[in-house]
Amino acid sequence: MTAQELQALIGSIPPLDSAAEQAARARLDRLTKPPGSLGVLEDIVAQLAAITGRVQPALDWPAVLVAAADHGVVAEGVSPYPQAVTAQMVRNFLRGGAAVNALAAAAGARVIVVDAGVAADLPDHPDLRRAAAARGTGNLRREPAMSRAAAAQAVLAGAAVLADEARDGLDLLALGEMGIGNSTAAACLTSALTGAPPEQTTGRGTGLDDAGLRHKRAVVAEALARARPDPADPLGVLAELGGLEIALLAGAALAAAARRIPVVLDGYISTSAALVAVALAPRLRGFLIAGHRSAEPGHAIALEHLRLRPLLELDMRLGEGTGAALAIPIVRAAARVMREMATFEDAGVADRGDGVTG
Amino acid sequence: MTAQELQALIGSIPPLDSAAEQAARARLDRLTKPPGSLGVLEDIVAQLAAITGRVQPALDWPAVLVAAADHGVVAEGVSPYPQAVTAQMVRNFLRGGAAVNALAAAAGARVIVVDAGVAADLPDHPDLRRAAAARGTGNLRREPAMSRAAAAQAVLAGAAVLADEARDGLDLLALGEMGIGNSTAAACLTSALTGAPPEQTTGRGTGLDDAGLRHKRAVVAEALARARPDPADPLGVLAELGGLEIALLAGAALAAAARRIPVVLDGYISTSAALVAVALAPRLRGFLIAGHRSAEPGHAIALEHLRLRPLLELDMRLGEGTGAALAIPIVRAAARVMREMATFEDAGVADRGDGVTG
Repeated sequence: MTAQELQALIGSIPPLDSAAEQAARARLDRLTKPPGSLGVLEDIVAQLAAITGRVQPALDWPAVLVAAADHGVVAEGVSPYPQAVTAQMVRNFLRGGAAVNALAAAAGARVIVVDAGVAADLPDHPDLRRAAAARGTGNLRREPAMSRAAAAQAVLAGAAVLADEARDGLDLLALGEMGIGNSTAAACLTSALTGAPPEQTTGRGTGLDDAGLRHKRAVVAEALARARPDPADPLGVLAELGGLEIALLAGAALAAAARRIPVVLDGYISTSAALVAVALAPRLRGFLIAGHRSAEPGHAIALEHLRLRPLLELDMRLGEGTGAALAIPIVRAAARVMREMATFEDAGVADRGDGVTG
Repeated sequence: MTAQELQALIGSIPPLDSAAEQAARARLDRLTKPPGSLGVLEDIVAQLAAITGRVQPALDWPAVLVAAADHGVVAEGVSPYPQAVTAQMVRNFLRGGAAVNALAAAAGARVIVVDAGVAADLPDHPDLRRAAAARGTGNLRREPAMSRAAAAQAVLAGAAVLADEARDGLDLLALGEMGIGNSTAAACLTSALTGAPPEQTTGRGTGLDDAGLRHKRAVVAEALARARPDPADPLGVLAELGGLEIALLAGAALAAAARRIPVVLDGYISTSAALVAVALAPRLRGFLIAGHRSAEPGHAIALEHLRLRPLLELDMRLGEGTGAALAIPIVRAAARVMREMATFEDAGVADRGDGVTG
């Protein structure tokens, strides 16, 4: 049943709307500016048209979906922070005190906090969505992080959260996460799905020293040796080496694309979710916008594999959705250019030396 | 008299507030995030404190100052657009149809349109500030762009515009400009003040082809050979090779710094204004934030000379203040982090493995 639902989700992603994209490119060239002079912003405009099927999409109701979960691999000492910080930070999100709250507010975006598998009791709160398939994962160095069924269930839980939010009007999704230990899972997934070795995919996360980094690389290498992941079986890779929040984000991204909603990626962990989701459903790739490139070295590898150019490169390495939130104003600004700029004809402005057009 | 006023303006720029900067850095490390994990955003926070003298500055009233002027050097065929486009685009700014209008609106910023020396009659409009020292410049290939007195007058006109806006509450200044032919002036100024040769400082502007680019380089080289600029005499450099809008922006930047207001640079032309202004008043440098790096090759040289790291690199090459406007949300987001994030003590979040602090 779950497997069927997952197949249905994967099959529900439409192709990009190339007619809308072409119409957007044509309109861009009639706006009062030299052709192409807005650079990457014009590419975003065209991509938004291809995604939404609309030449002038609105993007009035953006949200950052912050999925939180715990990771059994913290038992291996892969993070300088204790596991309890995951739940503490969820409370901080709900009180509005975290970096993602400030940056989402600055972007005019809501924060959706989802318990995807936190290993602690969380207080009831009107803004907390409960969607945990389990209370944390197994220790992926020594055992599968979760069963295939649990992985599929977590993906579908993310799709369900997105479906609810889309009904409430969400029209731009940014991905965020919290989970002490999850950069180890992201490194495992990135190695498994891109083929890059652990030395390239494993970084300092929230702040490991040199010895800690060496140890984390060994943990990632041992996890890969244990799991023998098959990149042609992305659900299996996710189950062996992933995380519950990563699975949930993969599902939310798939469900957003199914509704023609653009998806802004954050850092290494959300991008590892995108690697899994694109492996499941290659059409998803065109619906993704890379919000930023983080300081984690594996993030560049993951973005390159997805052929995505990040909008921001500001050496951020916090996660939570902070890089995605900071990129939201750029994406919304692109949409605004398309809605608000005058054409050469409208404005009576001369085009490239050949007199006033129109 | 003008010379004395200019000296007074230059002398009015305060030193950066290093005590406020240190207090900001200390507070950043108590916020609920790993130290340094917000990357460049933390540098912006610290710089904003150094500039404003406040650990939690507001930045509630940003504006893009768009200065427009014409350039005698267009007679040399250095732009694919006719000179009339300068005035046409001023009308477009006033009607709200240009790219900078859309991007400023997206950033919650006002657009201040200033006639710094347009060679055409402009209609009266409540949003148009008239501050023209002349109706366009001389052809800098063959004669000085303006007299030293006119250059000083244009700088002071920019300072006067800024003074009025600051009285009305402006607390974040972004620079923008419009002037067919002004990337030729920017190339001349950048060569004169950095020592880089015309081949490196001269680009395609709004869209020259290869032959046009070769010709523009020759024009820049001849202008430099004619003017023999002395980088130790920045007002002389500005008079020989600059533009009225460039001079006005230099003055606005100086007057902003004098009031501890941060200044966000746009592309090549506004950065050439900053080169002049920093040469006049080296203290200004610390008050500058590079909004983006444009596709014009000389812009990177100018930014490097000023030791500024651009926030955005999106291949934009439009000017008007578009890159600065797109960067405003990043600067405001940095300020918001400082005002809204909880400390570890506030939030009861454990710090780096040593238990809950506070």
